[in-house]
Amino acid sequence: MTLRFAILGAGRIGQVHARAVAGTPGAQLVAIADPVAKAAEAVKAAYGCDIRSIDAIETSADVDAVVICTPTDTHADLIERFVRAGKAVFCEKPVDLSLKRVADCLKVVKAAKGKLMVGFNRRFDPDFMAVKAAIDAGRVGTVEMVTITSRDPGAPPHDYITRSGGIFRDMTIHDFDMARWLLGEEVETVQAAASVLTDKKIGELGDFDSVNVILRTASGKQAIITNTRRATYGYDQRIEVLGSTGMASAENHGESRVTVADKDGFHSAPLLNFFMTRYVAAYANEIAAFIAAIKDGAPMPTTGQDGLMALALAEAALKSVAEGRSVRVSEVL
Amino acid sequence: MTLRFAILGAGRIGQVHARAVAGTPGAQLVAIADPVAKAAEAVKAAYGCDIRSIDAIETSADVDAVVICTPTDTHADLIERFVRAGKAVFCEKPVDLSLKRVADCLKVVKAAKGKLMVGFNRRFDPDFMAVKAAIDAGRVGTVEMVTITSRDPGAPPHDYITRSGGIFRDMTIHDFDMARWLLGEEVETVQAAASVLTDKKIGELGDFDSVNVILRTASGKQAIITNTRRATYGYDQRIEVLGSTGMASAENHGESRVTVADKDGFHSAPLLNFFMTRYVAAYANEIAAFIAAIKDGAPMPTTGQDGLMALALAEAALKSVAEGRSVRVSEVL
Amino acid sequence: MTLRFAILGAGRIGQVHARAVAGTPGAQLVAIADPVAKAAEAVKAAYGCDIRSIDAIETSADVDAVVICTPTDTHADLIERFVRAGKAVFCEKPVDLSLKRVADCLKVVKAAKGKLMVGFNRRFDPDFMAVKAAIDAGRVGTVEMVTITSRDPGAPPHDYITRSGGIFRDMTIHDFDMARWLLGEEVETVQAAASVLTDKKIGELGDFDSVNVILRTASGKQAIITNTRRATYGYDQRIEVLGSTGMASAENHGESRVTVADKDGFHSAPLLNFFMTRYVAAYANEIAAFIAAIKDGAPMPTTGQDGLMALALAEAALKSVAEGRSVRVSEVL
Amino acid sequence: MTLRFAILGAGRIGQVHARAVAGTPGAQLVAIADPVAKAAEAVKAAYGCDIRSIDAIETSADVDAVVICTPTDTHADLIERFVRAGKAVFCEKPVDLSLKRVADCLKVVKAAKGKLMVGFNRRFDPDFMAVKAAIDAGRVGTVEMVTITSRDPGAPPHDYITRSGGIFRDMTIHDFDMARWLLGEEVETVQAAASVLTDKKIGELGDFDSVNVILRTASGKQAIITNTRRATYGYDQRIEVLGSTGMASAENHGESRVTVADKDGFHSAPLLNFFMTRYVAAYANEIAAFIAAIKDGAPMPTTGQDGLMALALAEAALKSVAEGRSVRVSEVL
Repeated sequence: MTLRFAILGAGRIGQVHARAVAGTPGAQLVAIADPVAKAAEAVKAAYGCDIRSIDAIETSADVDAVVICTPTDTHADLIERFVRAGKAVFCEKPVDLSLKRVADCLKVVKAAKGKLMVGFNRRFDPDFMAVKAAIDAGRVGTVEMVTITSRDPGAPPHDYITRSGGIFRDMTIHDFDMARWLLGEEVETVQAAASVLTDKKIGELGDFDSVNVILRTASGKQAIITNTRRATYGYDQRIEVLGSTGMASAENHGESRVTVADKDGFHSAPLLNFFMTRYVAAYANEIAAFIAAIKDGAPMPTTGQDGLMALALAEAALKSVAEGRSVRVSEVL
Repeated sequence: MTLRFAILGAGRIGQVHARAVAGTPGAQLVAIADPVAKAAEAVKAAYGCDIRSIDAIETSADVDAVVICTPTDTHADLIERFVRAGKAVFCEKPVDLSLKRVADCLKVVKAAKGKLMVGFNRRFDPDFMAVKAAIDAGRVGTVEMVTITSRDPGAPPHDYITRSGGIFRDMTIHDFDMARWLLGEEVETVQAAASVLTDKKIGELGDFDSVNVILRTASGKQAIITNTRRATYGYDQRIEVLGSTGMASAENHGESRVTVADKDGFHSAPLLNFFMTRYVAAYANEIAAFIAAIKDGAPMPTTGQDGLMALALAEAALKSVAEGRSVRVSEVL
Repeated sequence: MTLRFAILGAGRIGQVHARAVAGTPGAQLVAIADPVAKAAEAVKAAYGCDIRSIDAIETSADVDAVVICTPTDTHADLIERFVRAGKAVFCEKPVDLSLKRVADCLKVVKAAKGKLMVGFNRRFDPDFMAVKAAIDAGRVGTVEMVTITSRDPGAPPHDYITRSGGIFRDMTIHDFDMARWLLGEEVETVQAAASVLTDKKIGELGDFDSVNVILRTASGKQAIITNTRRATYGYDQRIEVLGSTGMASAENHGESRVTVADKDGFHSAPLLNFFMTRYVAAYANEIAAFIAAIKDGAPMPTTGQDGLMALALAEAALKSVAEGRSVRVSEVL
Repeated sequence: MTLRFAILGAGRIGQVHARAVAGTPGAQLVAIADPVAKAAEAVKAAYGCDIRSIDAIETSADVDAVVICTPTDTHADLIERFVRAGKAVFCEKPVDLSLKRVADCLKVVKAAKGKLMVGFNRRFDPDFMAVKAAIDAGRVGTVEMVTITSRDPGAPPHDYITRSGGIFRDMTIHDFDMARWLLGEEVETVQAAASVLTDKKIGELGDFDSVNVILRTASGKQAIITNTRRATYGYDQRIEVLGSTGMASAENHGESRVTVADKDGFHSAPLLNFFMTRYVAAYANEIAAFIAAIKDGAPMPTTGQDGLMALALAEAALKSVAEGRSVRVSEVL
């Protein structure tokens, strides 16, 4: 059985998924949709698929699954349309910037008995999977503390920031998902601190560029997340999990494994500085997992509920910054 | 000029300082005091000094400086007595568990124009000094984020915990001092989370074993501290400083630099698991810095005020845990 | 312009090249040839190319280039046939196990003004390319010493060993090529030592499993190569270049970047243990370089002469072991 | 029982041993001898010992053991005198530059039933000891290959080179000893290559600055040694032991464990660049082992025979370079 895909949106992330779908055995890229003809044509040229409108795809009998890579404010509507149309849906995070809208959308998915996977690519990174496997194999005992260092090489454009929902919903959301996944227990309280340190303009737009968060579960497990929009040495993505009998940690990916030593010391390359090179394997694994789950009739590996919970943690973090206090996740849900 | 020392207290930390004093050019260990004769005699045997009472040392003309290594609840009194007696005083942290008592003691020191150094050994660790030197040399630009991972290999005995003032005052206090030193700016607010995860009894004693703290300065710089009383792989002591143009970090000290590779992978030794082996160079440098400052008539490298401020951060952290909110340091001072 | 390829031989290495050709922009896989129908069909199924006989490919007007992945004893003949047929030829090393036969073949290539690239995949490994780039950028000064550690995870089957020409011609030949490339100067003398340590049967077949070689150029630069057929911890592939002002080195590729720490220390995964996973990027880069050279009318990046010289070093090494002396390369050419 | 020491020679290495003796429990530094009064006085001032002549020490009843740190050409005579005088003797390598003279000296020691330890400090380095312990514990299986990278940060003065006996006897000799120790089997053949690459003057003095050596035992185990007099990045001292089931390796000692990351990548300090800082623990352990062996009536941990065999390997290496062939050690003994 080959799963036939359409991709909605031919921007940067749409291209990532187009490549992943095209390169995955058992998947076939049937159609691409994008209002920008040039973008759609580039995908067609590279992978030989059709160009169709979103409306046409909705009624295409030869499309089994769609990957939603359109702007965030269209996600929830498209999810609803396509699950109703009986397509399996993979949607890039977030489902929506409003928790209420996400919750409503998930109800529609449930009512339609739809299949929805929300893209949290990091869960599919081979190293992070190896950390999770070490935990699941009991190699660190009971998880106690999760430490996530997640730093972008540079801030996105100002107009993106305006539309992003802010750093917690746009950037930290990945770390919130990782924390939930690694803690293995829902977060009860959120404490966050936020600053503007790299670019005053970000502050003027109402956002932050440097944040730290402490998450605590009911049983007392904790996670800390440290984020900045600017790490000059590259895309810094580390996780560390301390348990009762040990610690598992995943290191960064440098541009090379080469070191030059001279009278001033030892020098090696900066980190890979782009999410598309750093997480190339993760994006491929993610689509493969989506396909496998559909074929096996298995639960989606990352669900709409995961998207909702990560967004709730972002809301709680914002509230914690605004009110200078520890916020219970139940307050925002 | 040789500086003549007496050491008050011949316990574990007293012995560390005895060795440091005995091995430092320009210093001479004249006397040791301890109510436990056997302990004092061991120091005498090892370094050939006199055994004297604390009272006798107070009036000894051949003693220029004292190192206070007695139980915490005696520190403030002894500091006051010895600065009044005209001795230079090195006191192990903390000056006292009560902020008020520390402040009063510092007034006495000031009135007596006394010389008081409070022992924060980590500032004298060669690696941490190299991190600070990198900051001071401008190699990371403006400091933005400090990350301190500080994990003990195992909890102290329960009766020590009872007397310790709790994890924030006993263990995190070192990290509070490091954070202040590396941030280069006073902390304005403290957020902390605390759990009991390694030993229920610690909770019954009213203490915690696993804590995370976020510190924030007025300009928005932040530090995070992560502590646990139990890291099975050794004494985990890492710091990392992110600045506007780069990051400086100091790695752990393993028991060896040897790796064995086999069919299961690569294996290296656990970390040094005792503060006296991990920080042997720091203790020696600390005493040397004390001596150098006295000889040069320079300010003490770590002061009573440093001791006060670190304790204030501990108070604020406790209050943050108790009240579930961000606490301004000014509230506790 | 798209370069149209046929691949001769659908075995393991043929499949590697098929994937590389199929995945390279500007290249098209037109045909596969293999006497084993099942092997050819697998390639056809995966990439949608024709199955043709070698004879048919020789006269196919729609084939611009061939990749020779057949058994070693057919290489020289096929190279001659296909350069005469006007095809660009990429041939897996070695051209032949006989130096004389290689030299004769190269004469035919020259007479036909043919394009021949001999596959030394390691020159196209991103890390090794970064080492070479560091040298070329002057970051280590004048090259003085090259150290190559090259250890297979396990010996090939005994029947392969019989046909392989022995460890120097089969395994060390890659390292000889790397040494020539990194030294930047031809080797003058070869000293080698050889042992049978991992499997007595290898000795009975007249081969060795553990060898060390010293190469020396006329100006005194040296390279050392250390090989074994069995490294339990994976495929160990390191190079290190010492120059007058510094050293450049490339580290191994582990199965992951994850470390687990526990009371026994720090543990990480073994090395990737298969040349096809370890050198996946190198194989892709190699074919891309072949295509680029043809399109640009540029010299082949690795030539028949490179194949000849590496084989000459292997001959000299064998002679050095047999005669217990330093052998000049000129003795075997 | 306290072992009473005299040190013959108050130069650089004499001072190293004076510090080691003074700092070792159970040892007492009684006397120092040196024709240069100032040098002797410095040791006296630092450790409070007597200054005596060598003749006086020979007959001093209060001296149990001597450490010979005089120029090489006096070693053999002094060993003979002091073993005859009934003193335990620790002599810095080499006993003599002439194999014959060493052999004769060892006969005298044997006849006198003297205790002689020859200083091969590296065997007492904690990391190298950990490698040996891993071998002895069976963690790498049967040893097959030893790789020793040993590079000085810079060449010694030209006049030292003239007196040194050449690089093999002066520098590689340490590596020869390490190889014997780690192989656990005597070397049968030696192959060496030598060049002058860092300083033409060294060649004019009849020496080399860049050498590689292959050692092979009767059973086929091999060791490779790579030496240069100039490594700009510090004192490079690595060993690696490959066995049938694994590999053990010891890494270098950097000046710090601090890394600075910036837009150009990751930067750490050069290696410790002086044997006295790099091997400070080894020198202390070495003297402690000497004392322990005397007290226990145990065999010396490194013997005159070890000194003889390392020198024989140096002779064989020189002969290999001169004659361009593999040299059996039996040819030079």
